[in-house]
Amino acid sequence: MVVRTSSSPSTPAESLEALRRAAPLTQCITNAVVTNFTANALLALGAAPAMCDIPGEAGLFAGIAGGVLVNLGTPTAEQRDAAREAVGAGTPWVLDPVAVGALPVRTALARDLLAARPSIIRGNASEILALAGAGSGGRGVDATDSPDDALEAARTLARATGATVAVSGEVDLIVDADRTARVTGGSVLLTRVTGGGCALGAAMAALSAVTTPFDAAITASAVWAIASERAASVSRGPGSFAVAFLDELAALEPTDLRSVDIRTERTGAEGAGTAR
Amino acid sequence: MVVRTSSSPSTPAESLEALRRAAPLTQCITNAVVTNFTANALLALGAAPAMCDIPGEAGLFAGIAGGVLVNLGTPTAEQRDAAREAVGAGTPWVLDPVAVGALPVRTALARDLLAARPSIIRGNASEILALAGAGSGGRGVDATDSPDDALEAARTLARATGATVAVSGEVDLIVDADRTARVTGGSVLLTRVTGGGCALGAAMAALSAVTTPFDAAITASAVWAIASERAASVSRGPGSFAVAFLDELAALEPTDLRSVDIRTERTGAEGAGTAR
Amino acid sequence: MVVRTSSSPSTPAESLEALRRAAPLTQCITNAVVTNFTANALLALGAAPAMCDIPGEAGLFAGIAGGVLVNLGTPTAEQRDAAREAVGAGTPWVLDPVAVGALPVRTALARDLLAARPSIIRGNASEILALAGAGSGGRGVDATDSPDDALEAARTLARATGATVAVSGEVDLIVDADRTARVTGGSVLLTRVTGGGCALGAAMAALSAVTTPFDAAITASAVWAIASERAASVSRGPGSFAVAFLDELAALEPTDLRSVDIRTERTGAEGAGTAR
Repeated sequence: MVVRTSSSPSTPAESLEALRRAAPLTQCITNAVVTNFTANALLALGAAPAMCDIPGEAGLFAGIAGGVLVNLGTPTAEQRDAAREAVGAGTPWVLDPVAVGALPVRTALARDLLAARPSIIRGNASEILALAGAGSGGRGVDATDSPDDALEAARTLARATGATVAVSGEVDLIVDADRTARVTGGSVLLTRVTGGGCALGAAMAALSAVTTPFDAAITASAVWAIASERAASVSRGPGSFAVAFLDELAALEPTDLRSVDIRTERTGAEGAGTAR
Repeated sequence: MVVRTSSSPSTPAESLEALRRAAPLTQCITNAVVTNFTANALLALGAAPAMCDIPGEAGLFAGIAGGVLVNLGTPTAEQRDAAREAVGAGTPWVLDPVAVGALPVRTALARDLLAARPSIIRGNASEILALAGAGSGGRGVDATDSPDDALEAARTLARATGATVAVSGEVDLIVDADRTARVTGGSVLLTRVTGGGCALGAAMAALSAVTTPFDAAITASAVWAIASERAASVSRGPGSFAVAFLDELAALEPTDLRSVDIRTERTGAEGAGTAR
Repeated sequence: MVVRTSSSPSTPAESLEALRRAAPLTQCITNAVVTNFTANALLALGAAPAMCDIPGEAGLFAGIAGGVLVNLGTPTAEQRDAAREAVGAGTPWVLDPVAVGALPVRTALARDLLAARPSIIRGNASEILALAGAGSGGRGVDATDSPDDALEAARTLARATGATVAVSGEVDLIVDADRTARVTGGSVLLTRVTGGGCALGAAMAALSAVTTPFDAAITASAVWAIASERAASVSRGPGSFAVAFLDELAALEPTDLRSVDIRTERTGAEGAGTAR
């Protein structure tokens, strides 16, 4: 169900509008901790989540889905087989290499899956460094590096795999073979609840059904930035923030995305940031 | 721990009261996305949830449980074996055939499990059509058919299996071999959070411990209708709705169910709806 | 990453402060129902949760974690192997023997794991009685016994294993070979949401990274008592309580723990309770 047309939406507002019109079926092979939050975030955004993650079904389902997320947070043997099936379906897919580098089973799997050419790779700086072969792997899910530390590794990875690489952090970097975008904003509370980054990867998978990987990653990051800021402004702490974040995702209007600070530049062009 | 007496409660209010007195142990073999919400919904309702879903334990546990839910949302190999064990225990059990028809592993399992005669089959219209062999299977968890489209399929399924068949939608249909009930009400927000339908199946399993399958399905649907309406009235969006729904389940008094619009008719009697 | 120093913190306030300074990596091998709530509770408390629970990774990860939780709520085959790996790493670890006694697979596993000498064993009275070989096992996750019924069993278990044994209930008992502490307080709403006890075990694992098992168990129980009371005072029911509980965990100041009623006595000294 790839609903992209020859004229892809070109702004985040248009991409979000396209997603809400299409309500793309978004398959998530993801970790046990965040399944509920991820499904609710996709529903609030306007997508149709489905957590189809067993062998014998995952490949078939990927064939009818509009976007696929493979998140390596708790990769059971069945999920590893399901992931291998799903990435072969020809549907745009996002790799979220949680804690890669530090742990051998998922690291081997991530390297295998790269051969199936993800549309987007999303991780924190430590994960992107590790996947590009340059880092220490952080300590599990915690980034111990900052996004700009991973800029060169992200470019290398983008060129080697053809993927858009999204590095989450205080400023989100979105990198492809010849462009770099920076999305600024968001609330630090997003790092105080589990699944904020994992659900961001799922949003990128949903948006991949309606626009290019580069624009999908930018749009999802912009949505996360503004929804998390609004949620933080009405929250007492991390518990109420997670609830409000879902409310804000659902309430967000495409035009609200125009206020997000997004700067894109051609790689190599120094100082030539262009506001979108 | 089947606590039904020879004189089953006959109204939804009496059934809810009986559930709260008995706090029946309710075993859930259910999908990874909704385990937490399901357990919390059962606790709020007044039941005692237990997610015992591994082979070697599931059958034994079903023997002491008052009701069992088998939900096929993310059926791992171990859950499939556990389901086969549990349905043989002689305890009332509910089949929720999530996304059946569209996906082969769960479809084969659902057909096998039918032989163990579920007390209740709960699904959306597409799932009921698929299970009765008449439909296309929708697209995963999304119903693409309306409940009344599935009425004949539900009757066929009820007659073939001896089960009560509950079709969730804008109006819920509850069908057995010779009766059809319609429960009207509820909030559309229930479709904007994951697990609303899955937890409804669990509530039917819990109520099966204290009343007949037909009355259990009606009572659970009535509880969902009123609790979701009340929750919607105090919510800002789907995040706060899910939280408020649990609060409302806990706050609900049996007598509140008297206001729900429930109409039951004998199959074949045209236009002879009887208000309960 | 064991960050305990030769001079362990000696009061709950100091232990919580030490936890927040260290943000110890806390590995949770836990049940499918509570993973999200547990991770969010640990984040709110100030720890860094990681749900690394597959064979081939769990043992390695336990080597870099500051504390490990093994909760037997839904013990899949992979989790059982992961647990065996993790408890051999030499890192302080907590055993939460959910529903042990009633169910054979987890009961056999729990007995095996005891040989690896947990730092803390946390359960309800029925579980502690069953693990000590003295009880009936309750009915699954429900305690059908009160903490004081389990006092002798807890002492026996503590002496046999060298562990601190924490029995959760209206008053929490924390027992080691020669001391008994009683932590009073908390809200009954904590028993109306799933995962309250499971997340308490995770908090004990996190605190084990910065203090002794006995003090870790007392501190976690004191944190749960005060955060649940505060959350209950701003909640409408179990749904909003679970959200508020996370907010209160994050807002809690170490000095707030001074108001919790904690009494510790040497075993054998009758009536000689000493206020801490």
